[in-house]
Amino acid sequence: MQILKSVSEVLEWRKNAKGSVGFVPTMGALHGGHASLIKKSVEQNDNTIVSIFVNPTQFLPGEDLSTYPRNEEADIKICSLSGASAVFFPKESEIYAKDEPLILAPKHLSSVLEGTLRPGHFDGVCRVLNKFFNLIRPDRAYFGKKDAQQLTIVQNMVKNFFLNLEIVPCEIVRGGDGLALSSRNTYLSDSELCYALKLSRALMKASNLIKAGELNSKVIKTAMQESLEPLKVDYAEIVNRDFEAIEKVILGNSIILVAAYVGKTRLIDNLWV
Amino acid sequence: MQILKSVSEVLEWRKNAKGSVGFVPTMGALHGGHASLIKKSVEQNDNTIVSIFVNPTQFLPGEDLSTYPRNEEADIKICSLSGASAVFFPKESEIYAKDEPLILAPKHLSSVLEGTLRPGHFDGVCRVLNKFFNLIRPDRAYFGKKDAQQLTIVQNMVKNFFLNLEIVPCEIVRGGDGLALSSRNTYLSDSELCYALKLSRALMKASNLIKAGELNSKVIKTAMQESLEPLKVDYAEIVNRDFEAIEKVILGNSIILVAAYVGKTRLIDNLWV
Repeated sequence: MQILKSVSEVLEWRKNAKGSVGFVPTMGALHGGHASLIKKSVEQNDNTIVSIFVNPTQFLPGEDLSTYPRNEEADIKICSLSGASAVFFPKESEIYAKDEPLILAPKHLSSVLEGTLRPGHFDGVCRVLNKFFNLIRPDRAYFGKKDAQQLTIVQNMVKNFFLNLEIVPCEIVRGGDGLALSSRNTYLSDSELCYALKLSRALMKASNLIKAGELNSKVIKTAMQESLEPLKVDYAEIVNRDFEAIEKVILGNSIILVAAYVGKTRLIDNLWV
Repeated sequence: MQILKSVSEVLEWRKNAKGSVGFVPTMGALHGGHASLIKKSVEQNDNTIVSIFVNPTQFLPGEDLSTYPRNEEADIKICSLSGASAVFFPKESEIYAKDEPLILAPKHLSSVLEGTLRPGHFDGVCRVLNKFFNLIRPDRAYFGKKDAQQLTIVQNMVKNFFLNLEIVPCEIVRGGDGLALSSRNTYLSDSELCYALKLSRALMKASNLIKAGELNSKVIKTAMQESLEPLKVDYAEIVNRDFEAIEKVILGNSIILVAAYVGKTRLIDNLWV
């Protein structure tokens, strides 16, 4: 596995990559969720490259940019064990210039849910991914469904920018207790971990209600809110795949999403139904 | 020469294009300036594709979008005679979606000269070109130096987006009388055509002053202003290649630019020194 530290090394690697290229963009602090993306890419492509970059432009002032977990050595090990061909550690100074074009994420898609609470976040996501897609020119790029809104926005950008790659959505990976794997879980104390389970349990409750025939969004959302108590909830919402609020769950075209604080840690989770 | 009317036809054409691809993006109403771009591309590439699209997002409200000269039949003839392999007439509905990511042109580069007078113009230019570059994936794209600021902004976008193509700047083509060729020249009456010559003459005057050793921007600009009278002048400026105002001309790194109204027609011209 090659460790690439500069743009010129990536271009050289890309030139020499024979066959198809899969790309897994990450912010590091890799866990089983990331490993599943890498493994899927390895299955589907001749070459797999993982980027590890805590992208400053997708953090808002006051967010956890400086404390975001970093563990280069363990990350390299996970990439290698998962079968990656290369890991790219971009330098901020090579990625961003002082006077350069910006990207604004699609207006509707980036102004609901995460977008309301993290204005500018998806602009930063689009900005860095557009660069990486052009630099790496992958045939496929792998994204977890856990960041459902991000996944949808990236799919929109790829389509509307006419980018020549396929976005492959990947299932959420959960611990045995149901907790969706997240780099931010490392922030949680043991007692907080218990409270963190409330997110996936609220989604389970919603799922069970739907299986029992309840499709009224309001009823399901109320049940989720109760289930999430006493957490500080940012949202517990039901939207269609275009992220428009819906009054009734449409099976095959709905996403149920929660965002809540466990102590100081903000967690998100969702369920595609 | 193939006439392509849809995105899928372009993709098919691109798939079958053997060897290198040159791209000449235009808004139609082709003249000798465009023909020189096409010919240069034909010289340097195995395939040359010309796009003809009066891009709505680069026009401001009140500008001449609806009256911009259109002449599809003559344009096809010029492309064919200049040796193009394909002409692409994009449909607006295929190029733009309702909720899609936007591009903001680089802040400094798009906030001076043309950017001050046409706010949002370069955002629209970047937005459409990024799409076309991704769709067509050319090896080289050809731009006239007449739109000097556009050329610089596009070069900046290509570099900072890591787009995999070369921007080839091409010399301004002038009539025998010195007037820079422009699609908007068709707006001019015979008497206005005389006044239009004042732009290139002001640049000539600047050039002669510089040849005589005068490098003080203020002196040169005053002489240009006098030379442009009685036209309504938007600007007569001297900048370096990063479009920063300079007090002294730096030979090899300066651009002298004028923008002025001849009647209702706004014309621009420039000289790279």
